[in-house]
Amino acid sequence: MLSIMFYIAITAEAMTAALAAGRRNMDWFGVCLIACVTALGGGTTRDMFLAHYPLYWVANPYVLLLVCGAALLTVAIARLVDRLRWPFLLLDALGLVVFTIVGCNIGMEAGVHPIIVIVAGMVTGIVGGILRDVLCNDIPLVFQGELYATVSIVTGVVYYLGLLAGLPADIVVLIALAVGFPLRVAALVFKWEMPRFVFDREMRK
Amino acid sequence: MLSIMFYIAITAEAMTAALAAGRRNMDWFGVCLIACVTALGGGTTRDMFLAHYPLYWVANPYVLLLVCGAALLTVAIARLVDRLRWPFLLLDALGLVVFTIVGCNIGMEAGVHPIIVIVAGMVTGIVGGILRDVLCNDIPLVFQGELYATVSIVTGVVYYLGLLAGLPADIVVLIALAVGFPLRVAALVFKWEMPRFVFDREMRK
Amino acid sequence: MLSIMFYIAITAEAMTAALAAGRRNMDWFGVCLIACVTALGGGTTRDMFLAHYPLYWVANPYVLLLVCGAALLTVAIARLVDRLRWPFLLLDALGLVVFTIVGCNIGMEAGVHPIIVIVAGMVTGIVGGILRDVLCNDIPLVFQGELYATVSIVTGVVYYLGLLAGLPADIVVLIALAVGFPLRVAALVFKWEMPRFVFDREMRK
Repeated sequence: MLSIMFYIAITAEAMTAALAAGRRNMDWFGVCLIACVTALGGGTTRDMFLAHYPLYWVANPYVLLLVCGAALLTVAIARLVDRLRWPFLLLDALGLVVFTIVGCNIGMEAGVHPIIVIVAGMVTGIVGGILRDVLCNDIPLVFQGELYATVSIVTGVVYYLGLLAGLPADIVVLIALAVGFPLRVAALVFKWEMPRFVFDREMRK
Repeated sequence: MLSIMFYIAITAEAMTAALAAGRRNMDWFGVCLIACVTALGGGTTRDMFLAHYPLYWVANPYVLLLVCGAALLTVAIARLVDRLRWPFLLLDALGLVVFTIVGCNIGMEAGVHPIIVIVAGMVTGIVGGILRDVLCNDIPLVFQGELYATVSIVTGVVYYLGLLAGLPADIVVLIALAVGFPLRVAALVFKWEMPRFVFDREMRK
Repeated sequence: MLSIMFYIAITAEAMTAALAAGRRNMDWFGVCLIACVTALGGGTTRDMFLAHYPLYWVANPYVLLLVCGAALLTVAIARLVDRLRWPFLLLDALGLVVFTIVGCNIGMEAGVHPIIVIVAGMVTGIVGGILRDVLCNDIPLVFQGELYATVSIVTGVVYYLGLLAGLPADIVVLIALAVGFPLRVAALVFKWEMPRFVFDREMRK
């Protein structure tokens, strides 16, 4: 089940990333690359931090074809994807939670400290979007929008504590989904944001 | 022969990267760093993806001196380098093909899936330029200009299929060069571009 | 002693990075992430170049809490931190030298070529600031300001030669500090800069 949701999430991330590339008039290759970086960049960064080799997409190269296929499909049906904004936001919220759970699993396999397990989940969930924004020459959205990284951290903590409590893994996945997904959706609906740190003094030279 | 062309290509990449740094008024250190990132960033990224350690420049640190030397030479003779635009475009085209072949070789040594062999070649060929553009605060050119990544992919496929067909390695290198190099030059001359994905709807908030 | 200075330097880097994030109106999560990337990004990059696993903060996750705590404290006392510009510049200068020494030590442990030992020190000293500037969507300051990377290189060379000469490690640390720290401070006071490479020809298309 987690595995099916994982592929759905990767596909959804690839499609929304393709729209971002289209807004910058990138060519089809750029669209595919932005899609790969967004959908797979978080897991890749996590694996490189944890020395967890081979990387996921090196071991399963067909996921690259899935991502590029989804990105090129988006080129063909861009207006439809854009109109389906809410379904995609929901899929993205699902993806955030699923990526976090997968990342925590890899962290626990690697036998790292609980703090790093949570960090591994968060890196998996958010770094793809950060890399997309850097390549599109924006300040990453995740630093300025509705609760996103926070959802990932909460999901990771719930998931880790659930496993620590000895609950069956399937149940804990469901609990983490039942906490993280509505939290992200609520953040979108009610525009919950982290407090900002607005510091308007110019840098003194 | 591949090895000689590899050093020529690294030197050419370092010199054109130095010009890009000069357009942003960087200091000499910035010029050297941009040159190193551009000339060596692709291979470094590939090696980190494949866990192929030690990195090339860690094992052969003199290549850093070559790159920095070429970059500083460019500072001295900038107007000449700028006037030699076509020779440098040709050297860059050669570099793209040579880097791709070298990257495919490393991929095959690592025993990865054929798709990843091609990806390893492409990462070696194009990531240096992407990192240069990110550090210079541009949207990467490779997403918007004449065929570049495509040339790398075609070269990689030809090279891999040639080796798979059992042809002698030297011959396959020549074939890959004979396909990739004219393809890139033709793309430059005739301004062949990938179709763009222009999506002008603002992001709905 | 080096270890105490190391933690002081990390804390100072985290606090000045938080101010940079505040200038871009990031939220508290963004502030913490920019702080982590700035304070720990140099060492992380060096470790990934040298395949020196586990990464420092993976093995010592409490350093993440230190960095995030320092960043959030900065949100509370931002005007004070801004007014203390000179103390922080001095701490940053100390950090540059200490990070360089630590990086050289890791390089020597890894048994790499002397050139790479110096590079490992420099990467540790400067890459955090480069990553901060990329995430804040600026051209990295280190390419355009007062001597910074050069201080790191000089410190590394002095440190390496001192150890090579067979002096006791503690003494060599003190010598490296006594060379690198005043050099950076003098560069700030007298506005010593590397020569710039100003190349104003537009790219010919």
